Amino acid sequence: MMITPSLAEVLASSYHSPQLDVEVRLNTNESPIAPPTGFLEEVGRRVVASSLNRYPDRQAHELRRRLGELHGVGPESVFVGNGSNEVLQTIFLTYGGPGRSVWIASPTYGMYAQIAATTRTEVHDGQRSESGAIEADTIDRDSTIVVICDPNNPTGAVEPETLRQVPSQRTEQLFVIDRAYHDFDTRDIPEWSGDNVVVVRTFSKAVSLAGLRMGYCVAGPDVVHALYGAILPYHLSSLTQLVALTALDWYQELTRAAALVVSERDILTSRLVKLGLEPYPSATNFVLVSMGRHDAHSIWEQLVRRSVLVRDASRWPGVTNALRITVGTPEENARAVDALADILTKEVPC
Amino acid sequence: MMITPSLAEVLASSYHSPQLDVEVRLNTNESPIAPPTGFLEEVGRRVVASSLNRYPDRQAHELRRRLGELHGVGPESVFVGNGSNEVLQTIFLTYGGPGRSVWIASPTYGMYAQIAATTRTEVHDGQRSESGAIEADTIDRDSTIVVICDPNNPTGAVEPETLRQVPSQRTEQLFVIDRAYHDFDTRDIPEWSGDNVVVVRTFSKAVSLAGLRMGYCVAGPDVVHALYGAILPYHLSSLTQLVALTALDWYQELTRAAALVVSERDILTSRLVKLGLEPYPSATNFVLVSMGRHDAHSIWEQLVRRSVLVRDASRWPGVTNALRITVGTPEENARAVDALADILTKEVPC
Repeated sequence: MMITPSLAEVLASSYHSPQLDVEVRLNTNESPIAPPTGFLEEVGRRVVASSLNRYPDRQAHELRRRLGELHGVGPESVFVGNGSNEVLQTIFLTYGGPGRSVWIASPTYGMYAQIAATTRTEVHDGQRSESGAIEADTIDRDSTIVVICDPNNPTGAVEPETLRQVPSQRTEQLFVIDRAYHDFDTRDIPEWSGDNVVVVRTFSKAVSLAGLRMGYCVAGPDVVHALYGAILPYHLSSLTQLVALTALDWYQELTRAAALVVSERDILTSRLVKLGLEPYPSATNFVLVSMGRHDAHSIWEQLVRRSVLVRDASRWPGVTNALRITVGTPEENARAVDALADILTKEVPC
Repeated sequence: MMITPSLAEVLASSYHSPQLDVEVRLNTNESPIAPPTGFLEEVGRRVVASSLNRYPDRQAHELRRRLGELHGVGPESVFVGNGSNEVLQTIFLTYGGPGRSVWIASPTYGMYAQIAATTRTEVHDGQRSESGAIEADTIDRDSTIVVICDPNNPTGAVEPETLRQVPSQRTEQLFVIDRAYHDFDTRDIPEWSGDNVVVVRTFSKAVSLAGLRMGYCVAGPDVVHALYGAILPYHLSSLTQLVALTALDWYQELTRAAALVVSERDILTSRLVKLGLEPYPSATNFVLVSMGRHDAHSIWEQLVRRSVLVRDASRWPGVTNALRITVGTPEENARAVDALADILTKEVPC
C-alpha cells in the first residue's frame, strides 16, 4: 500500500527526539519539577467520582470558561486540544491545506513544517535579520497563515516588540503566535492581540504537565468556532478535562517552578560561557549553545554516554553546530555542565 | 479570514449529537454501566505515582505490547490513538488525501465522510443490496481505502462473512474494518485479517470507557509504522496510557457489562416490535428502529421532552425516518419504551 507521496517526505525528516533511558533528561523542555502530591491526590479523588463510561463534554465548556477567566476572555474565545501540536494541526486543517501556504522563519519549532506537510500546506520559510529577529516587511503577504514562535524555539530569543503591530496591518492573514515559553519571559509587556491573532499556549512547560498533553489557544470567537468544526468530535478526554480543571485550581503551586527555572537558566548560561561556549541569550526554559570549534553531534553522543540527554540541534534548519539544553534542577544542570566540561577538556576540537 | 473552501461544506453538515441535560441518555452508544470503583481507585493510585511533568512514552510501548497480547500480535502491529476517530483520521492522512478516494457504503458511521472531507479525500459512496449488505463486486476498485463498519452503525447489522475474503483479492487497497461493536456480536467466527487489513477497535463501547477516548488498530507492521509517521508526536497522554493499562488489568470486570447489554438489546427489540415499530436486527449495543407512519423527528423531540435522549437518524444518508436507540440499563430501556408507548398512543400518525 503506497502512502501518499507528500507524506513520504515528512516521514523521512520528521520530528525526532530519541527517548533514551538516562539519568539526566534535558532534551524536551519539560519542567524538572513534578506536580505536588496534593494535586495528584486531588486528581485521584476526582477520577473516582467521574463517569468514565460516558463521553466527555464535547465542547469542554467548564474548562474553556476557566481558561478564558485566566486570560480575561469568554469561553467562546478558547479552543483546547491534546497538546499545542493538535491546536496547530487544527488551525492548519482549517485555514491551510492544498493551494495555501504558511509563513514561518527558521530556525523555529520543527513541528510547523511537519504539520504543514501532513496537512498539505505549502511552507514559505522567511529570512531573519543578522541578529536573528523577524523583520515585519519580510513576512510573506501571500500566506494565509503566519506562525511566529515568541519566545522562539530553539533560539530562546524574544521577537522585537514592534512586531506586535503587524497583525493589525495585515487583516487578511491569520497570525498564530506560539507562546509555549511565554511564562519564562520576564518582560512586562502586553500580550499579542487582535481579531486575526491566535495565541497558542500549553500546560507542558511552565505548568509542569507535559504528560497531560493539553494545549489551547485564545482567539476571536469566529476562529474558535471554525476550529471546533474541523476538530474530531470528543477529541478531549474526560480525564484531560478533569486534570486540566484541577490544574487551574492548583495553578499557582504548579507554575511556581517557573521562577526557579528562570534563575537556573541564567546560572546555566554563565557557566556555559565559562566553558568557552557561546550560549544564546534565552527568555525560555532552555539554552541553545553554539559549540564553536567542537562538533555538536559528537559532544551530544558523549553526553549520552555520561547519562545526560540534551537535544542535538546540529542538523536543524537555520542552526549550525549547536546543542539545546533544557534547564533542569540545580543538580541536573550541574551534572550537564560538569559532563560538558569533562568532555571538552578531553576533546581535540575539530 | 476565509477557512478553506472544502472545509466549509464539512462545517455545514458535520457530525452532531446534541449533548442535552436529560435523565435517560441513549444517544451515543456508550456503556450504561460505570467502571467499578476499585478500578477507578487503582487509576487514582497510579496517578499519584506518575511523573506528569515528563512527556509520555511517545510510542506507548507497554500499552501496545499489552494490546498486542490481547489480539495475539506484537506491539509493532498496534497503533493507538485518542479514540478510534483519531485512528481513522491518521489512516486517511497517511493513505488518503488530495487525488485519492475512500469507498464507504451508506448508511454507515458519519465520521468516515467527515474525516474524508477534513483530509481532502474524495468519498465514493457505494450501493448496498436490497437486504442492506455490502456485495463484494460493488466495492470500488479505484479507492485507496475501503472502510467497512462491521457490525454496521447505524443499522446494527453484520456484513456477510464471505466479505472477509475480499481483501486478499484486492491487495492494492487498504481495508479498514471498524470493529467498534464487535464485542456485541455473539457469532463465533474468525476476525478479519490480512496484510492490507486494518482492524479498528475502541475502549468506548464494550470496555465502558467512552470518557477515556482511547481507540487503536491492529494492522501489519508497515502500516503501523506509516501511521506513527503521520501522527503528531506525543499524541497519547501519560494519563490515557496509564488508564488504558489499568483497564487491561481489569479487562474482564470492565467488559462484563457487554453480556447484559446483549440480553437487554434483545428484550428492547421485542418490546419495540410490540409497539408496532420495525427495529432492525442488531449485533451491536443499539437498535435502529424505523418509525413507520410516525414522524421520527417529531417523536425524537417528544422523547426529549420526557427526558429521554435517543439519536434522530431521520436525516442520515441512506436512512429514512428512524431513531437509533442505545441499549441502556433495564431501567433506562423501560423508561424509553414506556415514553415511546405513551407518545405513540397519543400521536396521530403522519
